[in-house]
Amino acid sequence: MKSAATAHEVARLAKVSQSAVSRSFTPGASVSEATRAKVMAAASALGYRPNALARSLITRRSGIVALVMSYLENQFYPLVIERLSQQLQQRGLHVLMFIGDESEASSVIDEILQYQVDGIVMASTTLSPELARHCASAGVPIVLFNRVPDIEGLTHSSTSSVTSDNHRGGRLVADLLLQRGFRRIAYLAGLENSSTNLQRELGFRQALAEAGITPCARAVGNYDFGQAQQATRELFTGSASRADLRPEAVFVANDHMAIAAMDVLRTELGLKVPQDVSVVGFDDVPQAAWGAYRLTTVVQDVNDMVAATVELLDEQMNRDPLPRHVVVPCRLALRDSVGHPANQPSTQPASRQVRPRLKPNVR
Amino acid sequence: MKSAATAHEVARLAKVSQSAVSRSFTPGASVSEATRAKVMAAASALGYRPNALARSLITRRSGIVALVMSYLENQFYPLVIERLSQQLQQRGLHVLMFIGDESEASSVIDEILQYQVDGIVMASTTLSPELARHCASAGVPIVLFNRVPDIEGLTHSSTSSVTSDNHRGGRLVADLLLQRGFRRIAYLAGLENSSTNLQRELGFRQALAEAGITPCARAVGNYDFGQAQQATRELFTGSASRADLRPEAVFVANDHMAIAAMDVLRTELGLKVPQDVSVVGFDDVPQAAWGAYRLTTVVQDVNDMVAATVELLDEQMNRDPLPRHVVVPCRLALRDSVGHPANQPSTQPASRQVRPRLKPNVR
Repeated sequence: MKSAATAHEVARLAKVSQSAVSRSFTPGASVSEATRAKVMAAASALGYRPNALARSLITRRSGIVALVMSYLENQFYPLVIERLSQQLQQRGLHVLMFIGDESEASSVIDEILQYQVDGIVMASTTLSPELARHCASAGVPIVLFNRVPDIEGLTHSSTSSVTSDNHRGGRLVADLLLQRGFRRIAYLAGLENSSTNLQRELGFRQALAEAGITPCARAVGNYDFGQAQQATRELFTGSASRADLRPEAVFVANDHMAIAAMDVLRTELGLKVPQDVSVVGFDDVPQAAWGAYRLTTVVQDVNDMVAATVELLDEQMNRDPLPRHVVVPCRLALRDSVGHPANQPSTQPASRQVRPRLKPNVR
Repeated sequence: MKSAATAHEVARLAKVSQSAVSRSFTPGASVSEATRAKVMAAASALGYRPNALARSLITRRSGIVALVMSYLENQFYPLVIERLSQQLQQRGLHVLMFIGDESEASSVIDEILQYQVDGIVMASTTLSPELARHCASAGVPIVLFNRVPDIEGLTHSSTSSVTSDNHRGGRLVADLLLQRGFRRIAYLAGLENSSTNLQRELGFRQALAEAGITPCARAVGNYDFGQAQQATRELFTGSASRADLRPEAVFVANDHMAIAAMDVLRTELGLKVPQDVSVVGFDDVPQAAWGAYRLTTVVQDVNDMVAATVELLDEQMNRDPLPRHVVVPCRLALRDSVGHPANQPSTQPASRQVRPRLKPNVR
């Protein structure tokens, strides 16, 4: 497994310094093209290959970023792995995968720190203040992805994070449904204590409240496919099975659960989407655009979120800034899963319905 | 980033040898529970943490397995990442992600070898004989996942590989469609030169041929969603749009493309699945079970395939065996996307149709 030749031999053959050899093999390091070409020719002739791990002991850079993830079932996260790997690869870094949920966070972090990683990205999991201090004292940059460390204490948090504008996304959904004229609107929640669920629901409820509306029903799916199916049954059976009582529209806290909800509505309950029930999701996973779902949803821009994550890691690797929370804008993707209330023809403009308590505008 | 304490200090405090400290932190190493407990208590008191990378220079084990993947769009591969990460994690190993397609394989392999990885898993990509020799001369175990190195020369191949029994899977699909009474059967191909496509199609055609049937049409989707949509249009428009001429059933070389095909059949062409056209896929991704698709498909057992991969890596790490090709059995998952030919009532047993050229069984 050992390289046949040493950097010293390459330097001698290429007639350059040993440092020039090292820089030629370090992504982003300053070295002229002519020098790099001489080094590469010599390295190739001698069969020399730098040892990234040995180099990491000298440079204190392993070229490795740990990615902690527990939730690959949700189609949003494979996208995150792919884009994060690609964006880091362009900087000569690679993703080391750690699968583990909140309960295993402590042992996972211990294991990660043994690898002398250049950074840690924790996706869809939160980090206790104790673990955050543990990483900070080890000098390892860490970024929370799609979660904030402490929803109450963002301003004095110890950990950087990247999310989309979940609060605004929730408002966008409420505004759309109100504008279409819906009044009986339900919410299907994700994990109760996750910042994504808290902020999406908060924005949604605030915008509804401004129009004098309260959600007519609420059930919890915990971001799980099976639990979301069960939550959908709760929302649409019993007294809610009567057409004049059931929710006209439901905002589901992510696409993964929204697809489960649509399956139950159509297959089990014989309801049409959007003719009987309108459905809105959150994430815009590729599957939301599939012909059988055509789900209207809030777009989380994975590329922008990943770019912000890489930038935060980079900042922390190169200097010691205060933790930052980056919020990436989101927007609606309008597809076919949102219609109009059954008692209202779809051709009638619904914009007058937005603020029902205002007097008609007489101008 | 440096640990505050050394292994020497931990050994002194725990009153054990330095080797016992090392073994206590090495997954799978022989050490008594009592000794390990003493070491862990001392390590915790001193804030000691072993450096996995420094250890790798001594043990020649980095604890890292590189996973090369180009194709996360297909829902089969996120499952592979998750299961492979979990199974390796149980052995104290972790997955380092490399995203790159065939054209980048050479530079990716060079980069991987710099990390002194304990092994390489190449998923959905093939490896040129030259690159295979490159890895072999570096002494790095390598396993191809879901591909074979050379479909003609399996017996004298230089690289180990794991696939499901693609040939048998293709046969299972043909047998099912024949048994239901279909005769006008089309094939929607994946990447022409991939071993998965070659073997699935070969098994499928052989079983059809034994019943005197040739596929009525063929189009190529290259395992790509958009290209599969286009291939579906080719198969079902023009003269094939006539109900008496169009394929009654189509075998699609993977689920990812089968879902694209169902979308086009139903949304664009107004055809019902399975009433107008039956569809069969391959993989059994989670989405195949979703209510809007209910896709009949061939199950590739991800857990078994990953377990075989880990075993092959393990073999190669610990001794120097001949390359092996492991074939994991597959089976049909029957859902709702396969029906019966339009001219044949679904209640009539179709088993008599399997070998139409045989004389009726008079017994």
